[in-house]
Amino acid sequence: MNTKNIVACSYVEGSDKKFTGVEASTGNKLEGEFSTATQQDIDSALNAATAAFNVYKNTGNFKKAAFLTAIINELNAIGEVLVARAVQESGLPLARLQGELGRTTGQLKMFADLLEEGSWVEAIIDNALPDRKPLPRSDIRRMLIPIGPVVVFGASNFPLAFSVAGGDTASALASGCPVVVKAHAAHPGTSALVGEAIVKAAKQCDIPEGVFSLLYDDAYEVGSQLVKHPETRAVTFTGSYKGGMALVKLAQERKEPIPVFAEMGSINPVLLLPGALDTSAESIAAKYAGSITLGAGQFCTNPGLLIAVKSASLDVFKTALVSAIEQVPSATMLTKGICENYHNLSKNILAENGITVLAESKVTNAELINQSAAKVVEVSAATFLSNPKFQEEIFGPYSLLVVADDEAERLAVVKALEGQLTVTLMAADNELAQYTELVSALQNITGRIILNGVPTGVEVCAAMQHGGPFPATNDSRFTSVGATAVYRFVRPFAWQDWDNALLPDELKNGNPLNIWRKVDNKWTKD
Amino acid sequence: MNTKNIVACSYVEGSDKKFTGVEASTGNKLEGEFSTATQQDIDSALNAATAAFNVYKNTGNFKKAAFLTAIINELNAIGEVLVARAVQESGLPLARLQGELGRTTGQLKMFADLLEEGSWVEAIIDNALPDRKPLPRSDIRRMLIPIGPVVVFGASNFPLAFSVAGGDTASALASGCPVVVKAHAAHPGTSALVGEAIVKAAKQCDIPEGVFSLLYDDAYEVGSQLVKHPETRAVTFTGSYKGGMALVKLAQERKEPIPVFAEMGSINPVLLLPGALDTSAESIAAKYAGSITLGAGQFCTNPGLLIAVKSASLDVFKTALVSAIEQVPSATMLTKGICENYHNLSKNILAENGITVLAESKVTNAELINQSAAKVVEVSAATFLSNPKFQEEIFGPYSLLVVADDEAERLAVVKALEGQLTVTLMAADNELAQYTELVSALQNITGRIILNGVPTGVEVCAAMQHGGPFPATNDSRFTSVGATAVYRFVRPFAWQDWDNALLPDELKNGNPLNIWRKVDNKWTKD
Repeated sequence: MNTKNIVACSYVEGSDKKFTGVEASTGNKLEGEFSTATQQDIDSALNAATAAFNVYKNTGNFKKAAFLTAIINELNAIGEVLVARAVQESGLPLARLQGELGRTTGQLKMFADLLEEGSWVEAIIDNALPDRKPLPRSDIRRMLIPIGPVVVFGASNFPLAFSVAGGDTASALASGCPVVVKAHAAHPGTSALVGEAIVKAAKQCDIPEGVFSLLYDDAYEVGSQLVKHPETRAVTFTGSYKGGMALVKLAQERKEPIPVFAEMGSINPVLLLPGALDTSAESIAAKYAGSITLGAGQFCTNPGLLIAVKSASLDVFKTALVSAIEQVPSATMLTKGICENYHNLSKNILAENGITVLAESKVTNAELINQSAAKVVEVSAATFLSNPKFQEEIFGPYSLLVVADDEAERLAVVKALEGQLTVTLMAADNELAQYTELVSALQNITGRIILNGVPTGVEVCAAMQHGGPFPATNDSRFTSVGATAVYRFVRPFAWQDWDNALLPDELKNGNPLNIWRKVDNKWTKD
Repeated sequence: MNTKNIVACSYVEGSDKKFTGVEASTGNKLEGEFSTATQQDIDSALNAATAAFNVYKNTGNFKKAAFLTAIINELNAIGEVLVARAVQESGLPLARLQGELGRTTGQLKMFADLLEEGSWVEAIIDNALPDRKPLPRSDIRRMLIPIGPVVVFGASNFPLAFSVAGGDTASALASGCPVVVKAHAAHPGTSALVGEAIVKAAKQCDIPEGVFSLLYDDAYEVGSQLVKHPETRAVTFTGSYKGGMALVKLAQERKEPIPVFAEMGSINPVLLLPGALDTSAESIAAKYAGSITLGAGQFCTNPGLLIAVKSASLDVFKTALVSAIEQVPSATMLTKGICENYHNLSKNILAENGITVLAESKVTNAELINQSAAKVVEVSAATFLSNPKFQEEIFGPYSLLVVADDEAERLAVVKALEGQLTVTLMAADNELAQYTELVSALQNITGRIILNGVPTGVEVCAAMQHGGPFPATNDSRFTSVGATAVYRFVRPFAWQDWDNALLPDELKNGNPLNIWRKVDNKWTKD
């Protein structure tokens, strides 16, 4: 494993400030020493990215798809070593990381397929109307073009799927944008292994070197300088509200403001409707005990808020949830900091008025460190409405049950909610149709709404929306998961009366790429 | 003409602070007294907008199209009176405003057509895969939904096409968003007439009243409160850099930041290539004398920068341009403030080192006030590169010719340019192919590139892009002109395993609206 910083596909020394990876479950230092990148490394990475952009922006869809496919192959070639290192650094279970590697390569494949199909650029052609009165119309053709170098922040909770070759990198590379990744300090070794795979793939595919850089830092300086760098054109981030908003602020204070796509988490309300509880209280409890504690609760889509109206069936649900949660073993959290935060926040919240503990995990791994302990607490709707602290995310296997006296009070709770990534309704057959106003209010505060499922386990597909109203993300108009994530890194561009031979293939007469285009207001492949 | 503020389609009193319209060419007060809206009016307008949103967001495409069509009819019914008032308030010629009314109704028609066709919501369906291993896939369906109340600032330079029923309002209403318009104080009477037309149309079509409000102010307080209001979800603005950035800042400082779409102008560089000058110096000069002075130069796409390499043909161009500019009569500018600004800026720029006056209009209208005087000035490329002041927009019939010693120096000038709405190249047959690097550099700084035309006269069509890199706009990913302007006011939303009967028609099985959808990664109308 080469632990040096990568600038434009070349390894560079970095500074004298060093750090190592740490095994999450023991605190032991792991093999390999990483250097914080220097300001020179940052400048070189971004300047090389801009130079490479002027080539890469015109690189054809098939060549970019081949690059993504080469990354898949390189990742699969080191799969066992990579997953083993990720297990050590993240404390996540082997099966989860094996699955996450599959998700990572699946994402790359999805973008490669999107490129090969080619219609993603949204080509629109309005042919000239030379005889139009009073004035002739010019020939105007428009498609989406890449915006330039993208800074990607690796996420602690997805060491593969949202880090060095994760969804942000894959979608930026697909769009035609060079990427400078700031490795997450919680998994530098995993990052180094993936970085090496991307470098190899770039060289195999004759991709300009400036298209990929990977920089290390176990503090905030490198990340902050990357966002402030004049050549940076966009930033992606998945993490805390505080971290995301700090980057948003830096990006806005630049001379030239740039977009930040910050996915800042959410408490993902789950509405338990009475019919569902009457028919399936126990199975819903079992399902949610699993979803709340999956991956030690370290998902952006963790169900941190359950909202119900009091009833006998709700008591059945509670009893079943308590018994399930108590039996969930503690699990290793991603980092010491995340674990301490979880324990502090889930303890401090109990100091608020009107809160009671419903259930706590009783199975602990005493021999390991950084252990979570699942916790479900309860407040009345009136208490919830009186205290905005109950809406704050507690990252980990925690959930808050809000009990309303009636449906009117539940609606008031929903109307008081902040923006969310997801909302879920558990409903019996035909029950949903009676809740039009509730569903309408829920739609206003979320990006995805789920019926009779769990919010965890975000499907990577064309229709996925992973992004919701503030503060779930800072910009609900985009998604960080799914094929349309590519639209974060493009802008429309119009050519007027341009030489056909000099137009991009996507816009040429005769449609040489055989893509879907809107020609004179009709969608066609002609 | 009813001059009262309109809150949720009803006329309200407003405050005691009054102002009138002013005839641009004489300074005479015009009929009708307007009141600055109160804070209560602002609150009522936004609260009514939010209430209406919960109905209007689910209003079908055909009903929204009928509403837009009703606005067209109401505008046409008052066309003569409306245009006459707009001529008085703006000082723009009758023919221009007749054309602008046609453009305004044309825009409304374009969005009505877009709605009736229906595919604009970008429906994507990924059907469930119950047998997928290791986990089944849910049914996930996604389309674009409206974001909520939009605050539209009327623009001084398009009293019809970018004001009360202009492109911003039309696209917001098409998307399903209620609109609160802040009338531009330079044309309150025009605004009142258009506002009345929209109110009538809304009532005819049974559109919820909160969908439209129109508020007056001849200062900044109402606009500022509208941007800060917690119910506002987006803001559109066309005007100065200073004005646009003030709104961007207000929007970012909110507890919940919201998008602002600020089109802040541009100097629209025109590259005169040697072949074009060798063959057509005089006709290019005539064309550009017209474009620079059209509408007293008061267009966002006014060609404020001409970039050439020195040659004998350039001298022919200059001579022809001088003689054409000298004969352009002065014209009434939109307001006293704009005219004073134009005269000050176009005078002050002459104090910079190395600038010479090439041509000035010699035909004045002594009997009218607020008169422009066309001016073309010249600097060397070296001078231009040494002084960023030369890149500042001077709003009016002004253009700066930059003369480079050779193509290398011209490329340096292009690489130093800030973001622009448009860039134009004047080239002879087959000449463009020799300028790959120049064109690539130009693409990085603009949203639209034009061959052998003029940037003024922005076509309203599906392929148009009117928006460019900062500071031309604050967000180059969107357009304020053309059919895709509707994408400023929507966000993607996903339904997971939802009841088919409760899905929007756009996403239902069987495709009842017969729209284009991406189903399991294939575009289809099935």
